Amino acid sequence: MSSVRGYFHPKTATGESSIVPAPPWHYSGDVLTVEYRTDPERVRELLPHPLELAAEDPGAVALVWADWQSCSASRDELLDPVRAQYKETLAVVRCSYRGQVYSRCVYIWVDKDFAVVRGFHQGYPKKLGSVHQTRPHPFGPAPRIEAGARFGATLAAADRRLAQAVVTLRQPSPTGGFVNAHPMAHHRWLPSIEKGKGLALDELVESGTASFEAGQAWAGDADLELFDSPTEELARLAVREPIAAYYRQVGVVWDGGRLLESNTSGAE
Amino acid sequence: MSSVRGYFHPKTATGESSIVPAPPWHYSGDVLTVEYRTDPERVRELLPHPLELAAEDPGAVALVWADWQSCSASRDELLDPVRAQYKETLAVVRCSYRGQVYSRCVYIWVDKDFAVVRGFHQGYPKKLGSVHQTRPHPFGPAPRIEAGARFGATLAAADRRLAQAVVTLRQPSPTGGFVNAHPMAHHRWLPSIEKGKGLALDELVESGTASFEAGQAWAGDADLELFDSPTEELARLAVREPIAAYYRQVGVVWDGGRLLESNTSGAE
Amino acid sequence: MSSVRGYFHPKTATGESSIVPAPPWHYSGDVLTVEYRTDPERVRELLPHPLELAAEDPGAVALVWADWQSCSASRDELLDPVRAQYKETLAVVRCSYRGQVYSRCVYIWVDKDFAVVRGFHQGYPKKLGSVHQTRPHPFGPAPRIEAGARFGATLAAADRRLAQAVVTLRQPSPTGGFVNAHPMAHHRWLPSIEKGKGLALDELVESGTASFEAGQAWAGDADLELFDSPTEELARLAVREPIAAYYRQVGVVWDGGRLLESNTSGAE
Amino acid sequence: MSSVRGYFHPKTATGESSIVPAPPWHYSGDVLTVEYRTDPERVRELLPHPLELAAEDPGAVALVWADWQSCSASRDELLDPVRAQYKETLAVVRCSYRGQVYSRCVYIWVDKDFAVVRGFHQGYPKKLGSVHQTRPHPFGPAPRIEAGARFGATLAAADRRLAQAVVTLRQPSPTGGFVNAHPMAHHRWLPSIEKGKGLALDELVESGTASFEAGQAWAGDADLELFDSPTEELARLAVREPIAAYYRQVGVVWDGGRLLESNTSGAE
Repeated sequence: MSSVRGYFHPKTATGESSIVPAPPWHYSGDVLTVEYRTDPERVRELLPHPLELAAEDPGAVALVWADWQSCSASRDELLDPVRAQYKETLAVVRCSYRGQVYSRCVYIWVDKDFAVVRGFHQGYPKKLGSVHQTRPHPFGPAPRIEAGARFGATLAAADRRLAQAVVTLRQPSPTGGFVNAHPMAHHRWLPSIEKGKGLALDELVESGTASFEAGQAWAGDADLELFDSPTEELARLAVREPIAAYYRQVGVVWDGGRLLESNTSGAE
Repeated sequence: MSSVRGYFHPKTATGESSIVPAPPWHYSGDVLTVEYRTDPERVRELLPHPLELAAEDPGAVALVWADWQSCSASRDELLDPVRAQYKETLAVVRCSYRGQVYSRCVYIWVDKDFAVVRGFHQGYPKKLGSVHQTRPHPFGPAPRIEAGARFGATLAAADRRLAQAVVTLRQPSPTGGFVNAHPMAHHRWLPSIEKGKGLALDELVESGTASFEAGQAWAGDADLELFDSPTEELARLAVREPIAAYYRQVGVVWDGGRLLESNTSGAE
Repeated sequence: MSSVRGYFHPKTATGESSIVPAPPWHYSGDVLTVEYRTDPERVRELLPHPLELAAEDPGAVALVWADWQSCSASRDELLDPVRAQYKETLAVVRCSYRGQVYSRCVYIWVDKDFAVVRGFHQGYPKKLGSVHQTRPHPFGPAPRIEAGARFGATLAAADRRLAQAVVTLRQPSPTGGFVNAHPMAHHRWLPSIEKGKGLALDELVESGTASFEAGQAWAGDADLELFDSPTEELARLAVREPIAAYYRQVGVVWDGGRLLESNTSGAE
Repeated sequence: MSSVRGYFHPKTATGESSIVPAPPWHYSGDVLTVEYRTDPERVRELLPHPLELAAEDPGAVALVWADWQSCSASRDELLDPVRAQYKETLAVVRCSYRGQVYSRCVYIWVDKDFAVVRGFHQGYPKKLGSVHQTRPHPFGPAPRIEAGARFGATLAAADRRLAQAVVTLRQPSPTGGFVNAHPMAHHRWLPSIEKGKGLALDELVESGTASFEAGQAWAGDADLELFDSPTEELARLAVREPIAAYYRQVGVVWDGGRLLESNTSGAE
C-alpha cells in the first residue's frame, strides 16, 4: 500500500499532479477516416501471437485523423483548453482473437503528453507528432459537412511529413467505416528494468467506448500519400486499393477495459 | 522595378515562396470577445498623435480570442491545414481620428508566421504566443453555443501565462461587441536601417473587412485575469469594470486598406 | 512469445519503429543544479512506503536543469539531432530504503517524446514541459564557465511558468551537489486496465549510471522562484533555506537497473 | 512625432513591450556552413535589378545553420533564455552591386518571433522553421570540434523536411567559407496597404557585423540533401558540385547598416 495518491504519475499527497485523472474520460471530436487495402502480409507481420489476420478483408487499414477536446468527469480541462485539446493520427487494422474480430491500433501520433500517457494505459503505441485536419465551419472558406466538401489532413513526426490526405465528401453514410469499428485488442508492454529479463508487463487487453453519440456520418473518397522515414514504418502499409473515406462528429466516453491475457512469465 | 516576384518575401522567379500570397485573404473563425473598462489614461498613453481618446466610453477595451482558418483566393491552404489554421489573442481599444471613431489593436499574439507577416502589412503589432480557446461541438462534453455554455480562453508568451478568461453565454445578442466594431486605425512603422535616423516607414492606415458574414452572436459574462510579465504590458490595461462577453462564428474577407497619413520626414 | 520486435512500442516486424531502442543509452549534457531545503514534511508526503525520509538533511531538494544530447549505441540519433536533443527539469529528493540512502525524482518535465517514454521505463514521472537554460559559449555575450558567470534557467508546462532561477558561479567545486548523487529509487506504476482493480504494475526499482565522466564542477548561488499551477505541486516544495547551486558538463551511460520490490498483489 | 516609445512594435508609454530592443544586438553562436555550386541561372533569377551575378564563381551557395544566443546591450535576455536562444538555417549567395561583391540571404528560417522581426529590419526574408544541428560537447557521445567529428543539421517548415546535412570535419581552416563572407546586400520591401499601389517601402540596404570574434574554423565535407515543398523553392538551388563545409564558434555584434538605394516611387 502506498501513501501517495493519484491515478497516474507523479503521485503526491493530494493526487492533483497526476498527468491524467482517473477515468471516465470524455471526448468531443471530429473523426476523418481513410480506409484502404494493403498487402495482408503487411498486416500479419504486425500481429503478435495469439492474434491472427481477420478472416474477411484482412488487408483493410483505416488511417484516422481526430481533432479532440477531452476531459475528466469534472470537465475542468475544457475551461483551460491547453489541457483538453489534442489531435491524433492512428493506423488501425483488424485481427482475430479466439474467433472474434477486433480492431487494433498499430501506429499512433498525438500532440499532447496527457494523450501519450493515456495511450500507455490503453495500449495505444503513442508517439508525438504534428497533426492537422481541416475543420468544418458554417461561414467563410472552410468547408461545411456536405457533398463536395473537401478536408485536408496531414501528419508529421521528427520534422518529416509521414502522411497527407485530401478527402472529398460524397453522400451521407450509415457508418464511419468498418476497420476501426470493433473493440480494440491492444498489448500493454513494458520491458523489465533489468537487462535481458524480458518484459515486466505483457498484457493483452480489450477496450472500447463506454458510451458513444455521433452525428450523421458522411462517406467520400480520398487522395492519400504515405512517406518514408528512417524511424517510422507507416509507409510499409502501402495503399494497394482505396476503399472509402468518412467524416463524423462524435462524443465518446472511455471508462476502462478488460484483461484478456497476462503473460506473467515475461516478468521473470 | 524588380525582376523577382511575390507579394511578400522571399521574392523569387516564380513568386511561389512568398510567405503570404496577395490579398484577398479569406477567414473562417470563432471569435470570443471580453469587453471591460480600464482607466482611460492607460488607453490614452497607447495612442500616438494624432489619435485621441474616443469621446464616449474612452476606457473600453476588448480582449479578443479568435480561432481561424485562413486562405488565399486559391483556397489551397485549407487542404494543407498547417498553412491555414492559427489562433490569436488581441487587445483592442477605440480612438478618434479627425472626428471619426476607429478601433485600434494595441497588442496581439498569434501562433503562425504567416499571421505575423500579415500583421506587418496591416499594422497589427504581432508577436508569437500560445493561444487556446474552447471549441463548441455538437457532441460530448464540449459546449454547444447556447445559454449556460462555458468557454475557456488562455494566452501565453515566452512561457508565461498573460491572460485567461472563462466566458459563460447568457442570451443571443444583436452584436459581438462594440469596441472592435469600427474600421481599424493602425500604424505601420519600420526603423531606418541607419542608427539615429528615425523611421524609414511611418504610416497611419485604415483597414476593415471587405466582406463579413456571421452567425447569431451570443452575449454573456466573463471571469478575466491578466498577469504581469517583464516583456509585456497587457496587464497595465487592468480591469476596472466588466462590460460583457460575446461569442460569434464569422466568415471574413480582407482585401487591403487605405493610407491615412505618411510621415515621410521620418525616413530622412 | 511475440513475433513482433522492438524494445518499446510500436513493435513491428523489423523493430525499427520502437520509440526508443534498447539500452545502453548515451548522453552528453550540461547540468545546472539548485539545492535548497524545504519543510521535510513536504518531502515525506511524497515518499510511499517502504521509503522513508533520509536521516540527514531530510528536507534537501535539488531542482536540476539539464540540456542533453542522447543516443543509442549506434549514435545515429546524433546526426538527426531532432531525435537526440532534449531538455529537462527535475525535482530530486533523498530517501532511505532498508537503511540505504537513495535519490528519488519526484517531478520531471522534458520536451521530447522519447524522453517521456524512457521515463516510463526508468520510473521518472515525466510530463512535457518547456525548458530553457543559458548555454556557456566561448565567444560573445553568453557566459563562459568561470567565476561570476550567470546562467538563467526556466520551466513552464501547460503555458504556465513553474520555476525560474538565475545561478551565479563562484568557485570550482569537488561535486555537482549531494541530493541527486545516489542511485535512484523509483516506482514503476501502471493502473490495471480494469476499473477498481488497482495496479497492474507496481515495482520499486533502483538504477544509476553505468558510466560517468565529467568536467570540473562549479559551485555558486541561486535566485530561485517557484510558481503555483492548478495541475502542478512543485511549489509545495517551497524554499525554506538555500544550500548552493552547481554547474557541470557530463557524459553519462544508462544501461538498465535492478528490481528492488514488485507488489504483484496490486495486479489482482 | 509619436508620443509612444519602443524600437519596434508594440509601441507603448514605456517602450518595454517592443518585440526587439534597439541595437546593438549581441550574439554567441555555432555556425555550420555547407558550400556548393548550383546552376548560376538559379542564382541570377533571385537577384533583382540592380544586383548582378558575382563575376567569380557565380553559382556558389552557402547553406548555413546557426545555433544562437542573442541579447540586447542589457544582456537581460540571456538570463531568461527562452528570449535569447534561437536557431536558423539560411541560404546565402553572392552578387555584385556597383562593382562590389556582396553576400545576400535569399531564404531563411528561424524558430523565434524576435528573430523574424529582426529579419524585417535587416532585410532577411524570414519564415518560421524547425532547425536542428548537433552541438559539440566535451563529454559523452556528442562530437568534439576535431578531425573526424560529425555534425548533423536539419531544416523543416510547415511539417516538411526541406534540407538535411551531415558534415565531417577534416582539418583546421583559415576561414569559415567565402560565400557568406561579404557585407550583406538586402532589400526591405513592404507592399502598400492600398491594392494596386505597389510597394510602400523598397530599399536596398547594406549591413554587416559591427564586431566579430571567433574560434578556430574547421573545414570538412558534407552530405547535403534538399527536398521539394509546395511553398518553398530552396530545392531549386540544386547541388551541382560540392565545395566544402565549415564549423566555427563565433561572437558577433550587429549595430545597424547603411541605405544604398530607396525606390520611393514604389510608394506611389
